Amino acid sequence: MISRSPFGDSFEYSVNATQEQERLTQFVKNSRKTVVIQGLGFVGTAMAAAVANAKDASGNLIYNVIGVDLPDEANYWKIARVNKGLASVVSTDTSLDAAYTTAHTNGNLTATFSPFAYTLADIVVIDIHLDIKKKQLGNAREYDFTFERYKEAIKTVAERITNDTLVLIETTVPPGTTEKVLKPMFELIGRQRGLNTSTVHLAHSYERVMPGKEYLSSITNFYRVYSGTDDAAKQATREFLSSFINTKDFPLTELHSTTASEMSKVLENSFRAMNIAFMQEWTEFAEAAGVNMFDVIQAIRVRPTHRNIMAPGFGVGGYCLTKDSLLADWSYSTLFESDKRLGISLSAIDINDMMPKHSVEMLKSAMPDLKGKHITVLGVSYLNDVADTRYSPAELFYDLCTKEGAVMQLHDPLVSYWVEKATSVHTSLDELARLKHDAAIFAVRHSNYLGMTADQILSALPGVSLILDAFNIISEATAQSLRERGVKVLGVGKGHWN
Amino acid sequence: MISRSPFGDSFEYSVNATQEQERLTQFVKNSRKTVVIQGLGFVGTAMAAAVANAKDASGNLIYNVIGVDLPDEANYWKIARVNKGLASVVSTDTSLDAAYTTAHTNGNLTATFSPFAYTLADIVVIDIHLDIKKKQLGNAREYDFTFERYKEAIKTVAERITNDTLVLIETTVPPGTTEKVLKPMFELIGRQRGLNTSTVHLAHSYERVMPGKEYLSSITNFYRVYSGTDDAAKQATREFLSSFINTKDFPLTELHSTTASEMSKVLENSFRAMNIAFMQEWTEFAEAAGVNMFDVIQAIRVRPTHRNIMAPGFGVGGYCLTKDSLLADWSYSTLFESDKRLGISLSAIDINDMMPKHSVEMLKSAMPDLKGKHITVLGVSYLNDVADTRYSPAELFYDLCTKEGAVMQLHDPLVSYWVEKATSVHTSLDELARLKHDAAIFAVRHSNYLGMTADQILSALPGVSLILDAFNIISEATAQSLRERGVKVLGVGKGHWN
Repeated sequence: MISRSPFGDSFEYSVNATQEQERLTQFVKNSRKTVVIQGLGFVGTAMAAAVANAKDASGNLIYNVIGVDLPDEANYWKIARVNKGLASVVSTDTSLDAAYTTAHTNGNLTATFSPFAYTLADIVVIDIHLDIKKKQLGNAREYDFTFERYKEAIKTVAERITNDTLVLIETTVPPGTTEKVLKPMFELIGRQRGLNTSTVHLAHSYERVMPGKEYLSSITNFYRVYSGTDDAAKQATREFLSSFINTKDFPLTELHSTTASEMSKVLENSFRAMNIAFMQEWTEFAEAAGVNMFDVIQAIRVRPTHRNIMAPGFGVGGYCLTKDSLLADWSYSTLFESDKRLGISLSAIDINDMMPKHSVEMLKSAMPDLKGKHITVLGVSYLNDVADTRYSPAELFYDLCTKEGAVMQLHDPLVSYWVEKATSVHTSLDELARLKHDAAIFAVRHSNYLGMTADQILSALPGVSLILDAFNIISEATAQSLRERGVKVLGVGKGHWN
Repeated sequence: MISRSPFGDSFEYSVNATQEQERLTQFVKNSRKTVVIQGLGFVGTAMAAAVANAKDASGNLIYNVIGVDLPDEANYWKIARVNKGLASVVSTDTSLDAAYTTAHTNGNLTATFSPFAYTLADIVVIDIHLDIKKKQLGNAREYDFTFERYKEAIKTVAERITNDTLVLIETTVPPGTTEKVLKPMFELIGRQRGLNTSTVHLAHSYERVMPGKEYLSSITNFYRVYSGTDDAAKQATREFLSSFINTKDFPLTELHSTTASEMSKVLENSFRAMNIAFMQEWTEFAEAAGVNMFDVIQAIRVRPTHRNIMAPGFGVGGYCLTKDSLLADWSYSTLFESDKRLGISLSAIDINDMMPKHSVEMLKSAMPDLKGKHITVLGVSYLNDVADTRYSPAELFYDLCTKEGAVMQLHDPLVSYWVEKATSVHTSLDELARLKHDAAIFAVRHSNYLGMTADQILSALPGVSLILDAFNIISEATAQSLRERGVKVLGVGKGHWN
C-alpha cells in the first residue's frame, strides 16, 4: 500500500505487528521516561519535537518519544517521515525541521502505527482530533456530534497502559469530557484489566499552538493551562509541562478541575470568534456610513481596556475558531443538561461563517453580473503566511462566485493544491500575468501581498478593472494610484473608499 | 422659585436677562478667549474645570469659561453652585473640588442660564445629553428616538454665535449627526443671520470621562479622538484640546470625519457591552458545569490577545453602555438608510439589561419563596465607588424581588437616596445590623465591601441564612467561614461553590 504526503513524497508500507513491538521494546531500553503521543497532526508533531528535545539540568535528554498514528493511506506517511527525521506538518517554521533532525540524530524519537507503544508509556499525550460538524453553514445551532470515534481511539490507550501512567488530554473537547466521559471509561477498563486505577492519572492541558514561523516556539515559549482529575495528576502534569516549556518566562496556570481547563480553551477561542463577528457587524455599518474602520480601530486600541478590539477582514477559517463554541454548546445542553444555549456565541460563528458573502456582495455592487467574468482570488489559505486551507473562508467566496457563473482563478504563494476544492492554485504572480482578469480579490494578508505597488499589482493582473481589498492589504497610496489608472478599488471596512 | 441639589443645598432664583447679559459682557472683557460650555452635567462639569484651569507656556490662564444650563428647578442649582466655586456633580474626586475653588479664586469661570453667552464665545462646547429610550427592557430592537429637543438646544447656539466660532460637539450621538443633522442646521441659520458660514467650524470629539476618584484626570490625562467637518475645524479642535489635555503622554487621534469620531465613541462602548454579554452567557454555563469562571478568566488574560476578556458580574448600568449601540443602530437604519441592523450588539444590550434576573433566579434556587423574606441589597449604584444610580442593575433586581413579595432593604456607602426608586438607602452597616435579614446580595464592588470578613458580614447582617455574591466580592476563605457558620453562600460565576 502507498501513502502520499502533502510534501510530495510517498511511502510503501506493510504492517508487521510483532516486529514493531520488538523494535519499540528495544527503543525504550534505557533509563529515560517514555512519552507516547497519540496523533501526529498539527499539535502532536510540534509536541513530539518539543518533548524529544527536552533536557534536564545536566543537559541529558529526558524522554523517549514515540508518536503514534494510523497505518492507512491518509496517515502512514506521517510515521514514515518522522522515522526519517522529518516533520509531518507543512510549516514555514525552520526550527521545527531542525528539531526533527536533532531528535533523529539523538535517536530518542520514533513513530509507529502500533498501539503496543502505550504499554511502554510513562506518559501518554492525546493529540487526536474531536470533530463537530455543522449541518449547514450559517446555522451553528444544528450540528452532528458523537464521541464514538474519539472514544474508540482512546480506548486503545486505556486497554494498554500500565499502573502509574499519566494520560494527558490535549484535544479541544466539550468541557466535562475528561471528568464525565473519559474518566469512567478509564476506570471501567482499568478495573477489568486489574489495574490499580488510583494510579492512573488523567489530566487536561491545552496548547496554544499557532501555525506560521513561530509554530514550535508557540509550544515551548508560551503560557499553558492545565488541570488533573486528582492532585497526583495535577502534579505529574505540572512536572511534565515544566520539563519542555519555558515556565520561567511563561508560568503555568493550574485550574481547579479538568472541566475548567477544557472550558478555558473553548472560551478563549469563542472570545476571539465573538469579537471578530462583532467587528463584522460594525464593519458593514462603517461601509454604509463612509467610515474607514481601520482608522477607528486604531483610535480605540490606544485604550488598554480596548486593545483587543478586532479589525475588519475577509473571514474566519481554520480548525478552532470555526467550531469551538459548538463543542461548548453541546456540553452545556448534553453533559450538563441545561436548557440554555450559548446563543450569541453561536450567532457569532454564523456571522463569521457567512462573512465572505459580504465580499461577494461588495464585488457585485460594482460588477453586478459575474457570469463569465474572470475573478482572481489572491490567497486561499485561512491565515496569512500559513499553507493551511482547512475551513478557509475563500471556500464560500469561491462557491458563491462559481454559482454565479464566474471563472475562478486562484493564487497563493504557499498553496499549490487546494485539497478542499480539489483544484490547483498558482503560486507565482508571473503565472497570473498570463491570464485574463476582470476582477480580483486580495483575501489573505500574506507577506507577499502587503506593500505591493500599483505597478506590481497591474503587471500581475493585466486588464483588471475592479479590485476588492478584503483584508486591509492595499495601502491608501496604492489604491489612489490604481484609481488614477482606471481601476475601481473597493475595500472591506474602507467605507471612505466608496 | 427653588432648585434643590443632590448635595442637599437649595437655591432661590429669578431670571433677569438684561442684568445677566451685562454681567457676562463684563466677565469676558479681557484678552483671554472665551469658551462656553452648554450643559453642566457629568461631562460639562469636568470640562469646565479642566478648561478654566488651562494655562499657556508662560503660566497665564488661557480662557474665560462660561457654563450654561437651564433656569429650572431641576438644573438651576448647577449654575448657582458653580458661581459659588463648587462643582455641580457629586464625586469622590477631591481634585475636582480643588479645581473649582481655584477657578473661582482666579475669576475666570462662571455659569449662567443666559444663551446670550454664546454671542461671546470663541469656542462653544456641546455637553448636553441626547437620549434614546427602549420601549421595554429586554428588547433593544425597539426604541423611541428623536433629535427634537437636542436640536432645539443647539439651535440656541446657532442663533447666537458669531463668525469664526468653533462649535465642538462632545455629546454621544448617532454617527453622522454632526455632518447630516447639525451642519445643515448651522448653515441654514447662519445664512439667514448673514454669517460667513465658512468661518463657523463644527467638530466632534468624545471624552472618555470615568466617574470615581480619577474623574477630572480622566479628562486631562487620557487619550482623545476628534474630527471636524473641514480642515479649519480640525485644526481649531486640535489646538483647543491640546491646551488642556496632557497630549505629550496621551497623544490625540484625528479621524478623517466627524462621522468616524462619532462612530468610534459608540463602537468602543458597544465593544465593552458586547464582551460583558458574552461573558454572562459563559458565566451561566460555568455555573452549570461547576467551574470557577474567575480562575478561568485569569488563566486566559495572560494572553496579550485576550487581556480584555471581561469578568462575570451582577449587571451593567450607567448612561453609556446601556444605550450607545441603540444610537448606532438608529443611525445605521435612519441616517444611512440600511436595511441591516446591529443584531448581536443589540442582543448584547438585552443580555446585559436582563442580567440581574439571573441573580434573582440564583437566589430562588436556594430560597424558592421570597414572599415576606427580608432581602438586603448591598450596593445600589451602577459602579463601584461611585454614587451614580442611573440605570443601575440593582433596579431590575429590586423590581423582581418586590414583585415576588420580598421586603427589600438597601445599603450603599455612597447613596443615601435612590432617586430612580424614590426610596432611602442605609449608608452605614451599623444601621443594617438593626434590621432582620433572611438573604443578602453583594451587588457592587464598593471598596467598603471588598475584603469583609465573615465576622463583619454576620454582624452587619444578623440572622442571614443565604448570601449571594453577585460580583466576586467575598473571598474564598470568607465564603468557607460563612458556610461553617451555617450560612449558604452562592456566587455569580462561582460554579465551584455549587
